[in-house]
Amino acid sequence: MPSVDVPVALLGYGTVGAAVDRLLSEQADEIERATGHRLRVVRALVRDAAKERAFAPAPGVLTSDPSEVFDDPSIGLVAEVMGGVDPAGGHVRRLLESGRSVVTANKQLVARHGAELFAAAADAGGQLRFEASVCAAIPVIKVLRESLVVTNVHRVLGIVNGTTNFILSAMDEGRSYADALADAQRLGYAEADPTDDVAGLDAAAKIAILATVAFGSRVPLEWVEVGGIEELRSEHVEAARALDMRVKLLARATLTDGRVDVRVGPAFVDAHHPLAAVEGPFNAVMLQGDAIREITLEGPGAGGIETASAVVADLVSIVGTTGTGFLQGDPVWRELDRMPAGELSSLWYLRLVVEDRAGVLARLAHELAAEGVSIARLVQQPENGNAVLHIVTHEAPAGRVDAALAAIRALPESRGEASALPVVSERGVEELGWRNRR
Amino acid sequence: MPSVDVPVALLGYGTVGAAVDRLLSEQADEIERATGHRLRVVRALVRDAAKERAFAPAPGVLTSDPSEVFDDPSIGLVAEVMGGVDPAGGHVRRLLESGRSVVTANKQLVARHGAELFAAAADAGGQLRFEASVCAAIPVIKVLRESLVVTNVHRVLGIVNGTTNFILSAMDEGRSYADALADAQRLGYAEADPTDDVAGLDAAAKIAILATVAFGSRVPLEWVEVGGIEELRSEHVEAARALDMRVKLLARATLTDGRVDVRVGPAFVDAHHPLAAVEGPFNAVMLQGDAIREITLEGPGAGGIETASAVVADLVSIVGTTGTGFLQGDPVWRELDRMPAGELSSLWYLRLVVEDRAGVLARLAHELAAEGVSIARLVQQPENGNAVLHIVTHEAPAGRVDAALAAIRALPESRGEASALPVVSERGVEELGWRNRR
Repeated sequence: MPSVDVPVALLGYGTVGAAVDRLLSEQADEIERATGHRLRVVRALVRDAAKERAFAPAPGVLTSDPSEVFDDPSIGLVAEVMGGVDPAGGHVRRLLESGRSVVTANKQLVARHGAELFAAAADAGGQLRFEASVCAAIPVIKVLRESLVVTNVHRVLGIVNGTTNFILSAMDEGRSYADALADAQRLGYAEADPTDDVAGLDAAAKIAILATVAFGSRVPLEWVEVGGIEELRSEHVEAARALDMRVKLLARATLTDGRVDVRVGPAFVDAHHPLAAVEGPFNAVMLQGDAIREITLEGPGAGGIETASAVVADLVSIVGTTGTGFLQGDPVWRELDRMPAGELSSLWYLRLVVEDRAGVLARLAHELAAEGVSIARLVQQPENGNAVLHIVTHEAPAGRVDAALAAIRALPESRGEASALPVVSERGVEELGWRNRR
Repeated sequence: MPSVDVPVALLGYGTVGAAVDRLLSEQADEIERATGHRLRVVRALVRDAAKERAFAPAPGVLTSDPSEVFDDPSIGLVAEVMGGVDPAGGHVRRLLESGRSVVTANKQLVARHGAELFAAAADAGGQLRFEASVCAAIPVIKVLRESLVVTNVHRVLGIVNGTTNFILSAMDEGRSYADALADAQRLGYAEADPTDDVAGLDAAAKIAILATVAFGSRVPLEWVEVGGIEELRSEHVEAARALDMRVKLLARATLTDGRVDVRVGPAFVDAHHPLAAVEGPFNAVMLQGDAIREITLEGPGAGGIETASAVVADLVSIVGTTGTGFLQGDPVWRELDRMPAGELSSLWYLRLVVEDRAGVLARLAHELAAEGVSIARLVQQPENGNAVLHIVTHEAPAGRVDAALAAIRALPESRGEASALPVVSERGVEELGWRNRR
């Protein structure tokens, strides 16, 4: 096959853009071997073309004039690595409408505007690929779409935010939330304003995309029930340890009886579960399906070169599949309903702080039973004159647990705290023990 | 795109073949959505077409006459799921020579005859795909070839044999090797003759294939230095635990300075390493490379439906990429040398049993130092009147360690045992502790 030169444009030339440029030029032979094409960055749209760059592109590549990308008919392939919904979204849509194929690393854009962007791509005959928008170099989108094409994936479980996982790993080693966050900021894992990460918003965009691809049905960002780790305390981490578990910020998408539940929040993960071992800033996604039982992919979920590696793999896939119609359109092919909030069943860890006197336990048990929440394990400990109850329940719907906790909080014996975290384990509750560390 | 009917033939109709037939028929709509084609099993070559089958194919599909596959010009796509090198190898070659594309789940065939089969495919213009030959549904071949196309992968570390991992997990929980093997046989994880698994031969074929794809250079089966778990004793498992490690049968391929080392054998894996958490019959493969740091894929590494899922994904990929030249030829594009045996550097755990008297330690230390093997940690324990020494070394080449052990075994103070296992850790030796369980 004769080699064909493929001009590529970048939107943005920051850390990721520069790394894409470098990978394409350093790995040009490898790519030509694989696809018969040489990909070359010919244009990069930036705000300030005169700014000093760590990795300098070829002369004439940088431009701050969008028309140099949009109006150049030789450019058929573009990678969007500028981030943000605006102006990136408008640029991507315009490029797709003009028949270009686009690769994006932009999770907010895909999660919020995926439907219209895929429609634009389909209308004009180009492709839109987005591997890098979820977990950087971990190829979970390709695996879902191509390797698991005949697998009905019904559950996606992920640790998809490295910042919070780093913080939780540090808390697991005894640091406070505040100290762990400060460490993460010092090491560059967390932003000065960490809200996006610690409040679960970053993870929410990723699980919305993963759920959409896994279930083949559009999962809007608004469907994701989002919780963060700001309220988590050392007591939770301690209790998890005592149960031979770890606290993780889990992103979960579940398909049950044709209905979809998607949520992000802290959870107790059994130490024997593959996700429990994911430490520090790493990400991991577990896919559960009919034919495969479960497949877990783990790796660095962020980083300039890692993200660039996924962008380049998508560029190569576009070049390699153009004209085949192979797995390149909108992953959405059906319309599933959202599961009503509160219906998702789970095991739960409950932490209740109550007055330490006779009869209290009976009242708590009564409130739980009234909502059909059944206790599998219970450990009571004295603390500052109160009683702390650690409870692991059998399977119960989230809404029933919330209702029971509201009732318990209203009891005169309550000392304020009555909180619940889901428990993720592949073992039965019978096998879960309680082990004091102190 | 109008739907196109694609007739598929199977070689073999056992557990995997029947599952491929079932997946193609049950997931036909899904596949058509993804590729625009309907794949349908029209012929399955078996030894005895009259035999009762658990999943019955459509009438007329089963045949014991090879010409009904080979001479049918409507059949362009074949899945080989019969296993064994003969006659499967001859069939596959003949099909490839006649221009058919073939998917195979046969690791021995790919590891032994990959070169000639890929040459035949290239000559006649068909494809040969083999995802199912390594770790069943875990899509490590696709990820290596497509997602990591611009990543120079320089190390592959895998737990690629579920039988031995099940046995080692059971030993880790206190069972003897014999009991754990009997359990594995009772549960169907091990054959009546378990040699292929426990001696490391199954893992050797898989790592030869993985190394070939990862490094782009043919790694013959004969290059793999193979060790099994038959000689492993509870003492090793105990010592690993004391070091906060697990014993795993590791398949490892390493590319250093353009030279390749490939080996299978038991190793101590740090409990903080992602592979340490892989339990029971599961498989996992870690890929380390330039742009990605490391990506780990974990899942069930065997099973009829899991293997069939990978076969179907390959069939779909062939249909989806025919005519594009996209990543479908021989993964080999260069010729790397084998690293001379003994040169691969590693940390090591040494277990030495010697007479318990003054001066012995000095002689051991002398023999190790003579080979340049440097001690990082040493724990001495009395046992039946002898001294057992547990040593963790700094990095040292395998050959030097072997030479030191041979010298130690020849000392008059030796009580016979002087064995070494590699230590795999991402932490430095300084961080490795020793913790007695008793």
